[in-house]
Formats: sequence, structure tokens, C-alpha cells
Amino acid sequence: MKQAFSNLSEFRAILAAQEGIDTTAQTAAADHNAQLTKPPGALGRLEDLALWYRGWRGGERAEIGAPQVIVFAGNHGVAARGVSAFPAEVTAQMVLNFQHGGAAINQIARANGATLDVVALDLDRPTDDFTIGPAMSEADLVLALQAGWNAVDRSADLLVVGEMGIANTTSAAALACALLGGDAADWTGRGTGVDDAGLSVKTQVVAEGVARHAGQGDGLEILGRLGGRELAGMAGAIARARDLRMPVILDGFICSAAALCLAKTQDGALDHTVAGHQSAESAHVELLRALGKEPLLQLGLRLGEGSGAALAIGILKSALACHAGMATFAQAGVSDA
Amino acid sequence: MKQAFSNLSEFRAILAAQEGIDTTAQTAAADHNAQLTKPPGALGRLEDLALWYRGWRGGERAEIGAPQVIVFAGNHGVAARGVSAFPAEVTAQMVLNFQHGGAAINQIARANGATLDVVALDLDRPTDDFTIGPAMSEADLVLALQAGWNAVDRSADLLVVGEMGIANTTSAAALACALLGGDAADWTGRGTGVDDAGLSVKTQVVAEGVARHAGQGDGLEILGRLGGRELAGMAGAIARARDLRMPVILDGFICSAAALCLAKTQDGALDHTVAGHQSAESAHVELLRALGKEPLLQLGLRLGEGSGAALAIGILKSALACHAGMATFAQAGVSDA
Repeated sequence: MKQAFSNLSEFRAILAAQEGIDTTAQTAAADHNAQLTKPPGALGRLEDLALWYRGWRGGERAEIGAPQVIVFAGNHGVAARGVSAFPAEVTAQMVLNFQHGGAAINQIARANGATLDVVALDLDRPTDDFTIGPAMSEADLVLALQAGWNAVDRSADLLVVGEMGIANTTSAAALACALLGGDAADWTGRGTGVDDAGLSVKTQVVAEGVARHAGQGDGLEILGRLGGRELAGMAGAIARARDLRMPVILDGFICSAAALCLAKTQDGALDHTVAGHQSAESAHVELLRALGKEPLLQLGLRLGEGSGAALAIGILKSALACHAGMATFAQAGVSDA
Repeated sequence: MKQAFSNLSEFRAILAAQEGIDTTAQTAAADHNAQLTKPPGALGRLEDLALWYRGWRGGERAEIGAPQVIVFAGNHGVAARGVSAFPAEVTAQMVLNFQHGGAAINQIARANGATLDVVALDLDRPTDDFTIGPAMSEADLVLALQAGWNAVDRSADLLVVGEMGIANTTSAAALACALLGGDAADWTGRGTGVDDAGLSVKTQVVAEGVARHAGQGDGLEILGRLGGRELAGMAGAIARARDLRMPVILDGFICSAAALCLAKTQDGALDHTVAGHQSAESAHVELLRALGKEPLLQLGLRLGEGSGAALAIGILKSALACHAGMATFAQAGVSDA
């Protein structure tokens, strides 16, 4: 298979060359929106979403018919440091659960009419402990970015990326701290539910990683040093969606940290994304603020798997259904204000 | 057709006799929830929703398969006072739009797999101007409550009630002010978009109505004096859903004001309801606080029609899909924490 990029420099060049929103399509959508049978602005964020979506997709008004959810899985060297409430073998066990249809994301994807793909990335080969050296070599990082890039279904019209990886809130906290500053404690939360002693260890691991790697390069360089394969997979998929002019719903803390690596590599790299859900993971609110994203939902989830973003698929579907299906004042014979 | 009640006293007696949640079913659901393949509590409010829903429905675990949306429409005597940005004939025009499938609620109901019924209540006979006397006679109020009661499809498994009625935020503000206290200005907002002069008139109309009717009886009595047929229809449908042990998603400011009339008549009358969406109508946040309801969504809608609540159908569907469809730790062979 011919890859779209074969090293980090080529991937950076792709990001730098990607185009922005189609303002002509967006303006046409705004003109149509203004004629629909409702008081101006009365659909609130649904109207913004419809204009944004149509600006990225261009072309004819249409509903969202083919959302894709991709869950990337990876294992982390720092899991051995005792940073998670669950043992590392749970990553592989949960991948089987995804494949057999038993996880939360299977149900939420189905309830929202989305396909679900699971991409397990070298689970038997965890990343290296980032407190000792880089988590991944450049070659490993590129492989994971390519896996993400290639996993996107070009016939999809909306993308959700999610993840599974024991210890990956530790990786995400380290990425956020290294790229945004502040103390390790500001970015380190309880993840799947570590106790106070576990949280203390986790914070220490994050601090060690940040001390070793912060400032050593751009977002992609830091992604390789502190990230994980599933985070790189999400970053590759988000970039590929931009290439296909496919809007993306970001999930929780870990997905947002992966997205941050793109934003810190290329300005505007997340313009085609919206935040689906604000996680209960404590630092997510601050991370979303740094990304300039207002979450669509705040329902207290802290699961990952793409679950919060997949819940928001229904909101986008409704927004585009209104935009495509509503009558205009003229069509319906309704008196305007 | 034999009616379930023929006067307000009989309706009050029905409310007083209605049973609460099935705590046995709710406890069984909680036990099942604790075994599902996720960290404890990681699905946030989805878990609370599933337990609450199963507590009301009882019986076997099942997904939500037959949600019903009912939009009630009515006209208001106070519309002649110039309290709305739209003329009164828009109520009937929008009913036609609902019937032809062109309104926002048509699209949102369809996108969320719900049926939509429209109940137009004597549109050619507006309620009386409540600044002069009661909006409705007891007989008219009972007819509207019966219409709501009878509109609920007993084969549905989730109910959304919404409304259309030019000037009905004025009615809702008067109900909230009469039943909860405070100044007319605290409860009066811009509705479909009145300007400053319109807002001033609207506030004055609310104040006059409250001065005339507040303290003259319980929630149902006040509903007749300051409400409208579509508000009474919603109240009747909410009560009927309780009778059928069918959970209800409340919509925005007007729906919440109708629900408030039930709550002020009978303690616990809204235990089978959840707030779907916090409207951008300014006083809705305070009204939800008075009802003790935390909204599922906050997306800036201020449309009515049941639109915010219908958006939340997808959230409840996902919650129940997780509860019914997820594997347990034992089934999936996933290691517990």
C-alpha cells in the first residue's frame, strides 16, 4: 500500500497544505438557514453546527447518513509504574469486547447509526516508559499516524475517534502539561478511578515525563515522546478527515490531548473538529479551553472509547436534518416576524 | 368516549393516587449496571438515566423503541396585547407546517426515531385575556387536560410534550411568577424575539395577570386562570404518562411552566420526568431550579415545539442501549479493577 506520508516531515507538510472551510458553502447555508420556519437563532447551536458542517462538506444540502466511529487501542510502558486502577491486560480484553459488541461504544454507536471500527496497535509491544526516554521512535510514531490515516472510511460523512489504552490518561496529562505548561498536578486526574496513593504516583510519573521531554520540539515531536500509539492513531485519523473534508467530533481528555498535538504543530489543524463532550476527568475543561472548543454535551462521562463524541452524533444529525428538511417561510406560508 | 376524569376534582384525585418509582426494579437495574464492562460511574448521567428509566418501566431490560412526541397548539387572548414578535395567525400556520412535515420538530423527531402527533386545541377560540379575568373556564381547562390525557399513545415507551402558541411565553411567565413568586420582570423574557418595547409591554401584561390571579388556588386552578389550552394539554399528557409508567422528557420554558402546575398541585407529580434541555429563554434556568431538574442539554435553543426534549431522546436511547446491551465483566472476560 502506498502511504500518504512516510516520515514526520511529510506529515507536517500535509498538515501545512490543508485547506480551510469553504466560506462560499457556509454563506449559502447561512442564507438558507435564515429562511427556515423558526424565529432567527431559535435553534441555537444547531444552527451553528449546520453552517459549520455544510462549510466543510460543501455541495448540496444533505443529512448525515454515514458516521464512522474508530476506536484505537494501544499499550503504555508507564502502566508498569502503577498509574491505573486497572491492569494492562485490560486493553486487549476490551479490544475483544469491542469486537464482540459488548462495550459501551458498541451500543452508543449503534444507537446513533454509526459504524464502528477497532484498530488495535501493537498491543503486545507497549510504548517505552517515557520517564526514561521517548515513548516511541519516529518510525513507530509514523506507523501509528499512518494506521490512523488509513482507518478513515472515505465514504463516511462524519468521524468520531476514540481510544482504549490502560495508562493513557497519564500520557494525555503529560502531553497537555508539556504543550500547555502548568504543574503536573493540574493536568493529572483519576482516570478510570485511581485512589489517592495512585494519583500521587501518577502525578509524579507525569512530572518526570514532562521534565524530560517538554520543549524538545513541536506537537508531533512531543506526541512521539510522551504519547501512545492510540493517540497517534487518533491524530492521523483527524488529519485524514480534514483531507477528505469530513467533520470530526472530538471525544474526551485523551482524544483532546491527541488533537492538541496537531494544533501545536499547525495552526487551524482542528478547524474541522467540534468538541462532543466535556469529560468528568478533571483537566478536560482546561484542555478544551486551550483548544478553544465549547463542548456540545456535559453528561459526566469519563470512559473514553469515543463514547462522549458518539453521543453527540445525534445532535449533529438533528442539526443537519433541520437544515436540510425544514420548510422556508415562503414554502410553508408562515408569516415572518 | 369515556373520559378518565370529568372535572378538576377527579383529575386531582388521579394525581394524588399515582404511584411512585418501582424501587425493586431500580435496585435490580443498579445491580446489573455495577457489572457492566466500564469503570464504576464512568458513563456518568447515562447510568442515572438508565436506572431511573428502568425504575419507572419495571420488567425486563430493553432498549427504547417507541418514543412519542406530541405538540399541543393553542391561542391566547393576551396575544392581542402585542406581547409577541409574531402575529397570532402563526399558531395555525405552524400547525399546518407540523402536519406537512416542515418544522424543526418534524426533523428532530424523525432523526431520533420518534413518532410525532399534533393536537390543535380550539385555535379559532383563543383563551380570554388573563389581565381581565381567568384565561379559561374550568370546563375549558378540563377539556384541554382530557385532550392531553387522551393523546398519549399507550404503546409508546417514552414521551416528549411540546407546544406552539403565539404569546405563550407570556402565559408561562405569568404561571411561574404566580406560583413561585418574584417580580414579573424576573420571569419575562424575549420569547420568539420581542424588542425592548415589546418586552416592556409583555412584562406589564404578566404583572397585571399575576396581580389578578396569584394566590387564588393550587397549580391547576392557576393553570386555568393564567395558562392556555396547549399548556393544559401538556399537563394532561404528563399525568397520563405517569399513569402508564412512561418516562417523560420535559422541553423548554413553556413546557416546564405547565409541569410546574402539576408539581404545585401534587408533590412528586414530576418524578417520572427529566429535563431535556435548558432553553435560552432567560428565566428557564430559574424555573428548572424550582423544579429540581438538571437539564440534559444546553444548546441554546429557544424554539419550543418539543425540540429540546426531542434532541434528548437520543441521549436516553443511548443510556438504555448501554444498560441493555453491554457485556458484564464476567461475560467478556475483562479483569475488574
